[in-house]
Amino acid sequence: MTYFIRVAKSYLLPIILLVFASSAQGADALPSWNEGRAKQSIVSFVERVTAQGSADFVPVPERIAVFDNDGTLWAEQPMYFQLLFALHRVKVLAPQHPEWASQEPFASLLKGDLKGALSGGGTAIMQIVMATHSGMTTEEFEQIVRDWTASAKHPKTGQLYTKMVYQPMLEVLAYLRANGFKTYIVSGGGIDFMRVFSEEVYGIPPEQVIGSSGKTKFEMRDGTPLLMRLAEVNFIDDKAGKPVGIHQHIGRRPIAAFGNSDGDLQMLQWTCRPPGPRFCLFVRHTDGDREWAYDRASSIGRLDKGLDEAGIMNWTVVDMKTDWRKVFAFEP
Amino acid sequence: MTYFIRVAKSYLLPIILLVFASSAQGADALPSWNEGRAKQSIVSFVERVTAQGSADFVPVPERIAVFDNDGTLWAEQPMYFQLLFALHRVKVLAPQHPEWASQEPFASLLKGDLKGALSGGGTAIMQIVMATHSGMTTEEFEQIVRDWTASAKHPKTGQLYTKMVYQPMLEVLAYLRANGFKTYIVSGGGIDFMRVFSEEVYGIPPEQVIGSSGKTKFEMRDGTPLLMRLAEVNFIDDKAGKPVGIHQHIGRRPIAAFGNSDGDLQMLQWTCRPPGPRFCLFVRHTDGDREWAYDRASSIGRLDKGLDEAGIMNWTVVDMKTDWRKVFAFEP
Repeated sequence: MTYFIRVAKSYLLPIILLVFASSAQGADALPSWNEGRAKQSIVSFVERVTAQGSADFVPVPERIAVFDNDGTLWAEQPMYFQLLFALHRVKVLAPQHPEWASQEPFASLLKGDLKGALSGGGTAIMQIVMATHSGMTTEEFEQIVRDWTASAKHPKTGQLYTKMVYQPMLEVLAYLRANGFKTYIVSGGGIDFMRVFSEEVYGIPPEQVIGSSGKTKFEMRDGTPLLMRLAEVNFIDDKAGKPVGIHQHIGRRPIAAFGNSDGDLQMLQWTCRPPGPRFCLFVRHTDGDREWAYDRASSIGRLDKGLDEAGIMNWTVVDMKTDWRKVFAFEP
Repeated sequence: MTYFIRVAKSYLLPIILLVFASSAQGADALPSWNEGRAKQSIVSFVERVTAQGSADFVPVPERIAVFDNDGTLWAEQPMYFQLLFALHRVKVLAPQHPEWASQEPFASLLKGDLKGALSGGGTAIMQIVMATHSGMTTEEFEQIVRDWTASAKHPKTGQLYTKMVYQPMLEVLAYLRANGFKTYIVSGGGIDFMRVFSEEVYGIPPEQVIGSSGKTKFEMRDGTPLLMRLAEVNFIDDKAGKPVGIHQHIGRRPIAAFGNSDGDLQMLQWTCRPPGPRFCLFVRHTDGDREWAYDRASSIGRLDKGLDEAGIMNWTVVDMKTDWRKVFAFEP
């Protein structure tokens, strides 16, 4: 029976933890949410799909929830954090690349002219990302990201980037998982970048992270197998790419989707347009004091078409300023 | 407390099932395996990595096991079953393609000359696969595969293809899962083809199936979102592609890998070459009576370099004839 006891233990531990969790937080699994329509819509959806015998009951294996990352689970201002990582890496790598002194966008960047460097738009950004995200093994890259996230600080708050996560959304993740949901990240960000911290920060294991990626190549080097990161795009997990990435990785349709920008619109359509119990939510950045305020006119995280469609489809729109009691855990 | 009770239930049910499973099968989780080195190597590995306090203990989240499909979990003779599906689809679709009457490989195929049709090798096979696996939505394709697997019969045994699975390997899958492993398929076969039956046949959910794929494209058609299957290769999950697919989907390295051919060699290297407790196994097809006998010289499922490396690296090689008490569940 030792075999049984060992297995049973792996089930009993979560139960014990749940007893504590349950008594600690009482009936409210979302304490950082103010009472209101947004919070109510989440709770009501979860109660409907988990109620045995209800017409809207959804079996556990089909309880798939997908979350955008930048602007939905963590902040994305003054620019995407992964881009700040890439800019940092350009400076670190510059001594090995004397040619960058006369080559854009690197030349401007190294002179401190960020605006000039990024004036090349998507092409410039892609050059910076490729130069800093390839040419090493997957394990070397993981260590580079790990070192950066352990030390780099956000320019406005002075906090580690991994602290710039929204406390109310952490509660939604935990609440869904406690109700049998599998939670996924589906982000335009780099899949291998996010995987470094997704488990520790969000409780989302690497196999439940979907993102953009470069190609990798298998090699045997002195008897050691490794994957080299190539300077070649494999997949862009944004806009119409999000349903493609979801299908490729999960192979079934989510029943809940959370985003904050037009880049998430197709993911929310894919999730919520078909009939049946479904839940879609946009986080709207309305709080210039505690976070940032931007939507229809922003170059980062523009929420314009999505806001129109949310109105028509009756999706939940979170007003960060009024719906969230707390934005970041580090707030006083 | 209703919330807690509901959650606790989802943990208690597996425990109750385990009590029954445990008492029903006693100490032997692998009853279709004869006693011997192969069986012993599996049990010994699982006991080592699950023993709390042992130097080889592996935490549950890192217990990842990957399985090739064709020739490892189900049979692959007289040819890959998915190719038989594609050949069937050519016949079904022929009336809509009058041009096929004079276009190879379709012309030979429709005249019943299979050998001639496949004489074009990989290119001919790719043409057949593309013509039969694209041009419909992902949901339409799923239904086509579902209908075929529910009715098509294997030419030698007369069994449904989904019955051509190896009973000893089903037991290994269940045994690993009962010990906290997450089991994945990592196959050269089509990801969306396998997902149709992987949960029912192997207990492996769609999100744990990794395979070859074509590109898909998101579209809104009359307000309904859909993914169209394009006639364009996205990814070939074979040979050096297997570690790439594993990294892309799982994002961490497996600690156990099961294959049967040189197409699995890089997956086994990726899994077992690094230090630490690791387990690699090749199924060797040695039973011409109950199944098929083929290895170093076979065009399908060739096991040549892999057999050499298994000897050097001390990986387990299953001799189907002597190690398996039963091959298929339908045997008398």
